Formats: sequence, C-alpha cells, structure tokens
Amino acid sequence: MSSKKIVVIGGSAAGPKAAARSKRLDADAEVVLLQKAPELSMASCGYPYYIGGNFDERNALLATPTGVVRDEGFFAAAKGVSARVNTEVTAIDRHNKTVSCTDVLTGESCSVAYDKLVLCTGATPRRTPIPGIDLEGVRSLSEMRDADKLRELVDSGKVKDAVIVGGGLIGIEVCEALSESGMNVNVVEMLSQLLMFLDWEIAKLVEKHVASKGVTVHTDNGVAEFLGENGKLTGVKLNDGSVVPCELAVVAIGVTPNAKLAAEAGLEIGGFGGVAVDDFMRTSDPDIYAAGDCVEITQRITGKKTYAPYGDLANLEARVVADNIARGDKHKFPGTVNSGICKVFDLSAGATGFSEQRAKAEGYDVITATNASPDKPGFMGAKLLVSKMVADAATGRILGFQCVGPGEVNRQLAEAAMAVMNGNTIWEVGMADLPYAPPFSLAIDHFITTAHILDNKMAGQMTGISNAEVKERLDAGEKPFILDVRAPNEFEEMRLNVGENLIPLGKLRNALDQLPQNKDAEIITFCKISMRGYEAQRVLEANGWTNVKVMEGGIMGWPFKVEM
Amino acid sequence: MSSKKIVVIGGSAAGPKAAARSKRLDADAEVVLLQKAPELSMASCGYPYYIGGNFDERNALLATPTGVVRDEGFFAAAKGVSARVNTEVTAIDRHNKTVSCTDVLTGESCSVAYDKLVLCTGATPRRTPIPGIDLEGVRSLSEMRDADKLRELVDSGKVKDAVIVGGGLIGIEVCEALSESGMNVNVVEMLSQLLMFLDWEIAKLVEKHVASKGVTVHTDNGVAEFLGENGKLTGVKLNDGSVVPCELAVVAIGVTPNAKLAAEAGLEIGGFGGVAVDDFMRTSDPDIYAAGDCVEITQRITGKKTYAPYGDLANLEARVVADNIARGDKHKFPGTVNSGICKVFDLSAGATGFSEQRAKAEGYDVITATNASPDKPGFMGAKLLVSKMVADAATGRILGFQCVGPGEVNRQLAEAAMAVMNGNTIWEVGMADLPYAPPFSLAIDHFITTAHILDNKMAGQMTGISNAEVKERLDAGEKPFILDVRAPNEFEEMRLNVGENLIPLGKLRNALDQLPQNKDAEIITFCKISMRGYEAQRVLEANGWTNVKVMEGGIMGWPFKVEM
Repeated sequence: MSSKKIVVIGGSAAGPKAAARSKRLDADAEVVLLQKAPELSMASCGYPYYIGGNFDERNALLATPTGVVRDEGFFAAAKGVSARVNTEVTAIDRHNKTVSCTDVLTGESCSVAYDKLVLCTGATPRRTPIPGIDLEGVRSLSEMRDADKLRELVDSGKVKDAVIVGGGLIGIEVCEALSESGMNVNVVEMLSQLLMFLDWEIAKLVEKHVASKGVTVHTDNGVAEFLGENGKLTGVKLNDGSVVPCELAVVAIGVTPNAKLAAEAGLEIGGFGGVAVDDFMRTSDPDIYAAGDCVEITQRITGKKTYAPYGDLANLEARVVADNIARGDKHKFPGTVNSGICKVFDLSAGATGFSEQRAKAEGYDVITATNASPDKPGFMGAKLLVSKMVADAATGRILGFQCVGPGEVNRQLAEAAMAVMNGNTIWEVGMADLPYAPPFSLAIDHFITTAHILDNKMAGQMTGISNAEVKERLDAGEKPFILDVRAPNEFEEMRLNVGENLIPLGKLRNALDQLPQNKDAEIITFCKISMRGYEAQRVLEANGWTNVKVMEGGIMGWPFKVEM
Repeated sequence: MSSKKIVVIGGSAAGPKAAARSKRLDADAEVVLLQKAPELSMASCGYPYYIGGNFDERNALLATPTGVVRDEGFFAAAKGVSARVNTEVTAIDRHNKTVSCTDVLTGESCSVAYDKLVLCTGATPRRTPIPGIDLEGVRSLSEMRDADKLRELVDSGKVKDAVIVGGGLIGIEVCEALSESGMNVNVVEMLSQLLMFLDWEIAKLVEKHVASKGVTVHTDNGVAEFLGENGKLTGVKLNDGSVVPCELAVVAIGVTPNAKLAAEAGLEIGGFGGVAVDDFMRTSDPDIYAAGDCVEITQRITGKKTYAPYGDLANLEARVVADNIARGDKHKFPGTVNSGICKVFDLSAGATGFSEQRAKAEGYDVITATNASPDKPGFMGAKLLVSKMVADAATGRILGFQCVGPGEVNRQLAEAAMAVMNGNTIWEVGMADLPYAPPFSLAIDHFITTAHILDNKMAGQMTGISNAEVKERLDAGEKPFILDVRAPNEFEEMRLNVGENLIPLGKLRNALDQLPQNKDAEIITFCKISMRGYEAQRVLEANGWTNVKVMEGGIMGWPFKVEM
C-alpha cells in the first residue's frame, strides 16, 4: 500500500473535489488541503442569489445538502482530509517537493511536503487602472467576503444607486440581485452588447428585457473615472462624458487565472495566462496537477486551448486529477464546449458551442438559423424561446446554439450541449428522439425545429435574412417590400411600423396582385415567429418571385422597438 | 415541373405534416388529405389535460399557436392542401393507383387517384373481450369524441368513482385528470408495476406518489368482468375476486396499428402488426409511404424493428416521407430510442433507451446505477430526482436512463436521450460540459453524477445493491448488518425501521468497534441519497471489511414504507 502525500492548494470548488476523491480512491494517502480564505467549499456561483435575498442563511453556501457546514472538522471526519484554512501557500519548492505556507492570521509560516501536488488556485477579478477604483464603494464579487459585504449593503437599505461595470455573466447576475433588492441599477459595457457568448441580435433581446425591469444599460461605453468625495464613491463618469451618480459600483469585467505561484515555481504558463496542463491535467512537472479557474483547457470543437473558468468544469477537472493520481495517468479531460446559462429576471439565457461571430473568428464558414417559437403547446401555458443555431456550412455540423426567453431554455441548452459535444449535424438533430409530452415540450421540440429551419435553408427551400440586417438596410434608406403575413388582430396588437404591408398568409394566394409586379423585386416576409413567413416565401416562389427572404425569428425575435 | 398527385390518408399528426410539407417542397403538386374524423391536426396528446380541466377551450386542441383552427379552409388557404374530413378510405387499388373513399356522413363513395400515397392511418385502442366491455360507461381515449365525452362526464360532476384499466402512459395521464377533477380513482394493472418503461423499483416510487394522491393502485391484477345494471356500468370485478364500484371505466391497455387497409392492399405487414417500411419510410410498394402510429420503425440501439406510437416520432417520420417524395428517396428515418416522459401529479417520470429489464431481455449484460439527489442547490429550492442508468457492462455504453421525481426531470431525460442516440459511454457523459448555473442545475449535473456512480462501480470502487434486493432478503429472514450513516436528526425524521444501525459518517472512523468484528460479514450502508453510504463503504474497506455494499438511492430511493 502506498502512503502517498497529496497536497491540494485551494479550497473552493476544484480543490475540495480533488482532495476528497483522492482520499476515497486511496485510503492510505495523506491528503492535505490548504486554503487561504477562512471558508471551504463555497458555492460561489450562488453568491448573487444570496446577495439578492433569494435566501438568508449564509451557511447554505457552505453546507452539504443535509445542512452540515463543510469546515475543517467536516473534512477531517467525513472525508478523511486534513484541511487548513487561513493558510496561504507562498512558494513551491519542486526540488524538495515542499510548499511554504503562511498563516494569514498569525503570520506564522510552515512547510508541507508532497508526493503529488494539485494547484487549484482559482482566479482573481480583473481590475483596470481606472482613476478612483480604490474608492470605498467600488467592489467586485469573487470571495465570500465580497458576497458578505454586498449582502450587508443590500440589507442596510442605504444604497439607492448602483453601477455594474461589465455586462457579462456575473455582471448580469449581480445586476438582477441589486435591482430586485430595490436599487436603481445602471450597467456599463464597453462592447456593443451584453453577454458576449450570444450574438448581437440575441443579446439585444436580453438587453430589452433588462431595460424593461428599470435597469439602464449603457453599451459601447466604459468607465472613465470613479468619482468620489472623502474617499467614498459618489458616481461614475462614463467614456461619453455622462455621469451616473451611485454609492456602489461592482466591477465585473472578467477574471484572470491565479498562476503566479505556478509561474514562480517555473511551471509552464499558457497563452491566456493560465497554468498549462496536458489532457491528464498535469502541469509541466509530472508530480504537479492543476484544475479549476487557474488552468487553461481544451476547446473541444477547435482542439485549441482556451480559458473557461466555470464551476462545473472545475469539478470535472478535479475528478480527472484525483483519478490520475490514484490510478496512474490514464484519465483524460476532454475540455469544454463553452456551455453556459444564466437567469436574467424572467428570462433564461445561455449558449453552448460558438456564436456566429465567434465561429467566424475561428475561421468557420457558417450557416445559421433563428427560431422564435413556444416551448410547449399553447394550452399548456406556452412561453417563448428565441434560439439561434450555428452550423458549419460545408458539413452541417452544429457548432453552436444560443437560446433566450421566458420559456424552458434549460432543457434546450442541455440537449444542444450534448449535440455539440458529439459533433452532431443538423440532420442528426433534426431526427432526434427526445422525450415529449405536452407539459414538457412541443411534439417537435424547439431545438429540433431550429435544425429543420437550418435544413430548409441548406436545401435552398428557405432564404433567410437576419432582423439586424433588415434594420440596418431600412436605416440606410433601402425600401425592400416588407410583407407581414400575420392576421389583422395580431397586427393590431403589435407591429414593426417600418412601412410593412399586411397580407395574412391565408389570403396571400388570392392577393398576389398586391405584391410588386416585378418578379425580381426583393420581398422580405415575416410573421410572429416566421413559420408563416416561410410558408409565404414558398407560395411567392411558386408564383414566380425570385428574390424572397424570410426575416428569421419574426416579430418575436425583433430586438428593436415595436409599435403596440 | 411535376404535377404530382399526392394523397395522404389520415389527418391527425403524421398526415397533416406529410401533406403540408409535401406542398411546401413541391408547389406544383396536388396534395389531398383524407380524414375519417371530423377534425384535423388534433393535439391528441393534450386530451388528458383537456379532460382534467387544465383548459376549457376545446379548439385549443385544434388551433395553431396564434389561435386559428386547422380546418379544411385553413389547410386550403394556408397550406395549399385539399383536406377532406369525414372521409373514410375503404380500399387501395395499387394497380390503378386510386383509393376508394366513403363520406361517413352521407354514405357517398368516391375515388381519388394518386401518384404517391401516404398511409397515416394511426392506431386503435386495444380492447380485450372482457365480459361487459360494451356496457355504457366503459370507454377508451383515442379520438377527439372520446375526449369530448370524458370532459362532459367530468363537467357533469355525476361520476364519483372511476376505474382506469391499464397503468401505462395514457392510463396514468387519465388517472391524474380524473382524480384532479374530483373523482375517486382506482387503477388496475395486470403487471406488477405501472409505466413499464421504468424498472420495478423506480415505478414503485411513482406508484407511491399516485397512492399519496388518494388513488388506489391494483397491480398484478386484471379486470375479470365489467359489472352493470340496465346496460350501464356499476363496477369492475377484478381477477382477485374483489369488486370496485364505479360509473366510469377507461380502458387504456395500449394500441394496435391500423394496418388493415395496407394489409388488404397486399402491403407487407411487420411482426408487431404494423405497416412494414424501410429506412425511407417506404412500404413494400415504392409508390406508397407510411408514417405515424400505423408503422413499425427501427429501434436505434438494437437495429431491430419495434412499435413506437408516439406523436413526436410521427411528425419526424412524416417529414422524411415528404422529403423523399419531393426529392427522391434520399432521406432516412433513423428510428427511436424509446424516449418518453409524463407528468404524474407533482412528479415527472420518463425514460430513454432501455430499462434494466428490457436491456436484459434484449440480451445485454448490463451494469446499473441508481442516483437519488437534488436537481439544484438547496438554497435555490432543490427538488429530488431519482434516476437509474443502465449501461452495457462490456463497453460502458449507456443503454438507457430513467428519471422520476418532483425535480427537473425534463432536462435530464433530454440530455440522456441525446447521449443514448449518440452511443455515448458513461465516461463520455461523465465529462460532459453542460450548462450550469444555480437556478438550473447542480455544478455536477445529476445525469453526470449518475454516470460517475456507474464509473465508480465499474472501477470496483463501489459495490451497490438495489433496494429491491435488500427488501427481498430482509423479507426472507436474512440479517445483513444494515448501516445508516445519516445524522441523528435525519434518522429521527424518517427511517427504514428494518433493524438498521445508526452511525453518522463523521463518527464512523472512531466507531469501528460497533461494527461486526468478522471482517467478512456483509454490511449494507446507506444514507439519504447514498453519497455518504458510498463514503462509508470506502472507509470500511480501508479498514479491512471485505463485504460492504451501498444500497443505491438511499432512503430517498426506498420504494417501500418508511417509518416517520
């Protein structure tokens, strides 16, 4: 029997998983977990929900499903792992196979020997040197104490105005938390959209929803300066010169991997600044593994390295590390397809694989389809889903899928993630046998329908045009014939008001004289979700029109203002 | 340009899809849809929800998402399809390529010529020759008029007691509908469990839940006779001699394919009595296609033919038919993995692929894992999921996945269906990158965890035993040492009461003297969901015990009575 000494640095997600499983796989091993923070196994993805008051019990973030707090005593008794909190590792001596630590409370130092070392050092919120960033009131959200502080501010009721700097996942989650707790919230994003894993026109739907909740979103804008008085934040000056008064600003512009310890020990660092590991999660030192937010991993579609700091991946990486330490290096971590999801007020939004913009940036020639349609039958209380599927134009392989809406986004993204991972084509997905009953989905699942739309496009049955392109061309003064084929009552309720012509689909075959008589004139059809728009295209093409396009996603997918 | 005559027989699910898409793909085709019933495009899977009063608008079952009823006028105007209702096809003349029809209202007959014929003749509820089956009050649920009648009975408030004959999908959905509308419901099932796509111990959890709603479930029992007075049902006599009084009985013991028309025309019929088709959905006559509940299709795992009459598959099959008619026979329908889901009061229950019993019947050597655990973090309002994964013992390929519970079953089954279709192994699923955020799932998704449990079992890290086997052996008088490693407060709340010993996991390492000192004695560990049970096994094996098993699913998966 071995009596391996396994030392794990970092006690958030990957660290505890690697430590506990290492012990389960090798009962004779001595497993030590070193953690700088005072807490262990924090459910950090839950911080926004704690801040927003979804629950009040702070310990819920630290407890097992049966309510036992995962502290040092728990790790010793239940896991057989010797965990030491408030213990910062300051150096790795690879030659002597020891790590140097400091007790952050007492300042005492110590040294711990290892046979195998696991780096789970996590990541740090990115902070740019904006003037005033050190003012009291400028915060980030990374550690438990950050969550504590933000919750304290929420509970105090003293903060009226808050600014979120960064419209990514964490920014949006914190935006919701603060807004729902009663604060007046502004979100400032440098880029032209929120949630960069979505394409622009899909992200705009999220932005519209966020705005409908009273949040002001500033895109294409940045923070020029944090303004303050007596060391306290009083407002934010934006790049466009405007000033937003606030007592709280949360900077959430991404994270950078904590790789300093690794770098100082001479371990290889990757192109994104993270610890470089091979498929077995080994660093450049065969006795040192790494997992979690500090590492770079493989992007499964391209095979290239990427940086994907997500809690779920951290756990899987750590499982691979434990398996390889216990059983020899046989277990590979396959990497990420960039699956992600978030709640945004009454919407869910997420993606797996690549957006159109990202796929193009990776060099793919892509074809896409947008589908706005209900998640289940109307009589079961259907809610809208708006999706976009991105496929390789040459092979039909699905490269990515985005989905937002008040409907059942969760299932859609999960099945799409499995499809992307498996390299499925649109035709494979178009014939998927998924669970169906009216309380759960449509007879033809939304994801399958999206693949069918793309199939129709690839087969030349349907020619699509994106709402963004339609808007751009209208704004540029072009005058294509826009044909709304919905019913008059639908038009009454809501319309684009861009000079469109209303001819309901059921009347179209008998109203062809109302269309441009030049058969080469451009006609853009749409309806509520654009199924009828597609049928209109079929009808018009059958009657000789040659330049008909369907505006994908219909009026439900239109991210701009509608008239109601 | 062709001017093909396409005739489609049947107007429920597959028929309208085949007809409408045929017209979209070939605008010059003349498409005729012949339907015996007075309605078209009925959302028949929605009948139970209409009966149960989830909604009152009968037309919702017949309407498009925007509320337009899909009648003959709709098909003509919006789809360009000539639909004729109340039109029964009585014969196919393959030589002259015509079908003979009768108007079921007037008795008039006619003949329609075809170039391509599509059979979507559906299925008929199975009725066995039980004495009294023709009494007034003995009904089935297949057509719209059946739904109308059952809804009328519900609305009348006159039926106090109802018996459902058959505990399959439709039986359970109707059971819920009638029970929720206030009737006292008994379910009678010949076999030893409800929902045969589940394994026995998983189905028992559903049965327990159904019983908790006041429904009496009789398994291993059948109907010997329907009892009546003056031609009206008064009760049901069961095989065990007991009598259940009732004014309504709904017979839901499965359906048989409507293949008579095809058989009489000399088309090949399959081993299940359905119309035989090839991968292109062609019958033995190259000009006749078939789709929907009347056909036999391929089971994707075995490659053998099966009978899978589901509305979602009917739509996909019909799409393939339309594609092949329009574009030549190039499109294959890959078949089914038997994905299904249903709502059962506060639970969802479903499966994809094979259950353990079915996989064994198909000749597979299988290994299984049961996982009872929450769908998301406790602080987000977690609900329970109980799942069972079945994999091929030799290759680790996932053959099936079942999931029941009040939690998010829908996503679990959808991702599992994708995995089964793709032939994924437990190791592939164990490293899946699925969308994660606390409102939607656990950091390690329930499905992934189930794969991890199976990985642990296959690696020899964990030895499981099913709760059914534990119960059977205890009932037979065996006395294994049963070790509950939960906390005292959990034990206080709920316990098996089978003579178990309580030693909380955290105390186990210091309480080894309380265990059988014979290291070969059989010890069966468990906890709430059996994660701690597994950890206890690791601890005991590390201390020399050689015969330790984990009762999979823990007390939450225990389908028998618990003491509270």
